[in-house]
Amino acid sequence: MDKEYNIDNFLHKPLSWLSVEDNSEDIAISSRIRLARNISGINFPISSDLIEREHVLKLVTDAVTKNKKYENSIFYRADKLSAHDRRFLLERRLISREFCSGLEGSALIVSSDEKMGIMVNEEDHLRMQILRPGCSLRQIWHDINEIDDMFSKEFPFVFNSTLGYLTSCPTNVGTGMRASVMLDLPGLTIIGHINGVIYGAGKLGLAIRGLYGEGSEPLGNLYQVSNQSTLGESEEAIIQRIENIIVQIIKHEKNARKVLLEKRRDFLLDYIGRSYGILCYSYILSAREALNSISALRMGVVLKMFSSLDLNKINELFLAIQDAHLQKIAGRKLTASERDVFRAELVRKKLKS
Amino acid sequence: MDKEYNIDNFLHKPLSWLSVEDNSEDIAISSRIRLARNISGINFPISSDLIEREHVLKLVTDAVTKNKKYENSIFYRADKLSAHDRRFLLERRLISREFCSGLEGSALIVSSDEKMGIMVNEEDHLRMQILRPGCSLRQIWHDINEIDDMFSKEFPFVFNSTLGYLTSCPTNVGTGMRASVMLDLPGLTIIGHINGVIYGAGKLGLAIRGLYGEGSEPLGNLYQVSNQSTLGESEEAIIQRIENIIVQIIKHEKNARKVLLEKRRDFLLDYIGRSYGILCYSYILSAREALNSISALRMGVVLKMFSSLDLNKINELFLAIQDAHLQKIAGRKLTASERDVFRAELVRKKLKS
Repeated sequence: MDKEYNIDNFLHKPLSWLSVEDNSEDIAISSRIRLARNISGINFPISSDLIEREHVLKLVTDAVTKNKKYENSIFYRADKLSAHDRRFLLERRLISREFCSGLEGSALIVSSDEKMGIMVNEEDHLRMQILRPGCSLRQIWHDINEIDDMFSKEFPFVFNSTLGYLTSCPTNVGTGMRASVMLDLPGLTIIGHINGVIYGAGKLGLAIRGLYGEGSEPLGNLYQVSNQSTLGESEEAIIQRIENIIVQIIKHEKNARKVLLEKRRDFLLDYIGRSYGILCYSYILSAREALNSISALRMGVVLKMFSSLDLNKINELFLAIQDAHLQKIAGRKLTASERDVFRAELVRKKLKS
Repeated sequence: MDKEYNIDNFLHKPLSWLSVEDNSEDIAISSRIRLARNISGINFPISSDLIEREHVLKLVTDAVTKNKKYENSIFYRADKLSAHDRRFLLERRLISREFCSGLEGSALIVSSDEKMGIMVNEEDHLRMQILRPGCSLRQIWHDINEIDDMFSKEFPFVFNSTLGYLTSCPTNVGTGMRASVMLDLPGLTIIGHINGVIYGAGKLGLAIRGLYGEGSEPLGNLYQVSNQSTLGESEEAIIQRIENIIVQIIKHEKNARKVLLEKRRDFLLDYIGRSYGILCYSYILSAREALNSISALRMGVVLKMFSSLDLNKINELFLAIQDAHLQKIAGRKLTASERDVFRAELVRKKLKS
């Protein structure tokens, strides 16, 4: 395991879970499954001491190191990361807000392609996740199951035969699984049907949240669809339910775009064109405006309005324009207004190149 | 005189009074002097009958035809022009709103380069004007004086030794002259000093009005500076006074741009860049937004931000995006929303070519 890996190197690699081979994944951007697990006989992190947490850390890293597939993973101790680096990892979806508190004995293990990540001693002993492009929960479930099995062979997890896996927070008890798919829904947002979709998904036990998960507002027309409950249903059943609804939402979104193209064509082209104009020529660009404009541009790319752009370039922009990423790219701390200026410059350059 | 000249031909010639040879005229766009005259012994148009108006028309056209310089002028009877053509000529600053009423016996005589125009039987028997690029009132005064003399040799004007030339409206009595300079003042508008300038000019007996003259609101940061009074002062003195103030306003405008460039550079670049982005990529564009964006872009051209654009191209855009011009270019009547779509398309094309 690489404990000296420079975090800045992440910047210079394309993000594999955002990379698509063609433009087929035009609505479902990425998928993610996270499993919460705790090791038997050791206090949960919230009530543990440093010795226990270090013990957990050793158990987990030893297990990962044994696995050929993940032996080159990268390792970061939470308390060794600067606040800025934590924010950076948060933006890359590798850690949680909770993890940002930097508890001593907490650590992140991440595969070098960033698809697999394990937070150790966050709220639970293990929070493992896999990210992939597109709507790919089944593939992810297969892969994360392997990791789960790998750990199970090394140490027993806290498991109750009635409830399932036990976790710090009751909302995770049972499967300990949170599965989510990130969707880009400009069509439904524009025609004003998005609230109906959110309401409908809620009635089916799914949550639709903004880009940054729980409590965050929708930005850039990006929405995360995830399961609300983890109890009383198998993982496969949960995944099946999410996928069924994703198929429905994608159908609605495609229909919304079709309606816009047929009945409000000028409006739609104007909406996309202006967003592109702002991204290409503004000199002050807030994160909110950038996200909203990038989402509009993304729809333009899907509609083949921009021959020189592909979805990978757009998906990368979503990541790059975030605060911590901007500062990593700039190589220095930026004030809020400096960020808006630098963000505009970065976007102009990326779209010109 | 050409009485069969197709009005649409105007579209296909660069407008000489908007054409500049270099980018030196970056603030003063164009100048104009108009003289109001009435022929002795004939009722003013407001109280005249058709026979009298036809008589005036013959006197004026005969005089113009005799003059080598203007023998190729073009002639349009007001009542023969469609409402749409009148609007088109109004946008080209060749006729007044008053003239648009289409009184029988009224006519427009215009030189083929559109620099010289005479409305016959508008409010007064003669309303002659000369337009030129830049701040050029002295040159215009020289040229329009010649025309005035040319007519004086053919028929006496109504002249009172105390008051000067008599006119239909008392506000024109005296010199009968209205001299104006069109200024592009985005800097003063942005930093919020424009109202101070308007107030100051008013105290010095000058009016500052919007693009379409009296009663019109400022659009696209374009302002017309003109003399309020025509009485008790020689033409040269009025022109001198206007030029003195124009010099001051230009100094203030340059200073405003300098301040913006030095202290609010990002804001200024953003303002200009976004305007360019909107002009290049929008699909629905109102006249107001177009004018404001073109004005911002004009400042960008002056600041050498756009190497492929020059002021002539921008000045032409100011004209082309107006309602009647759009419909001439489209070759058909357009509804308000069709105009916004066609305007956006036209601007996109013009900026790409």
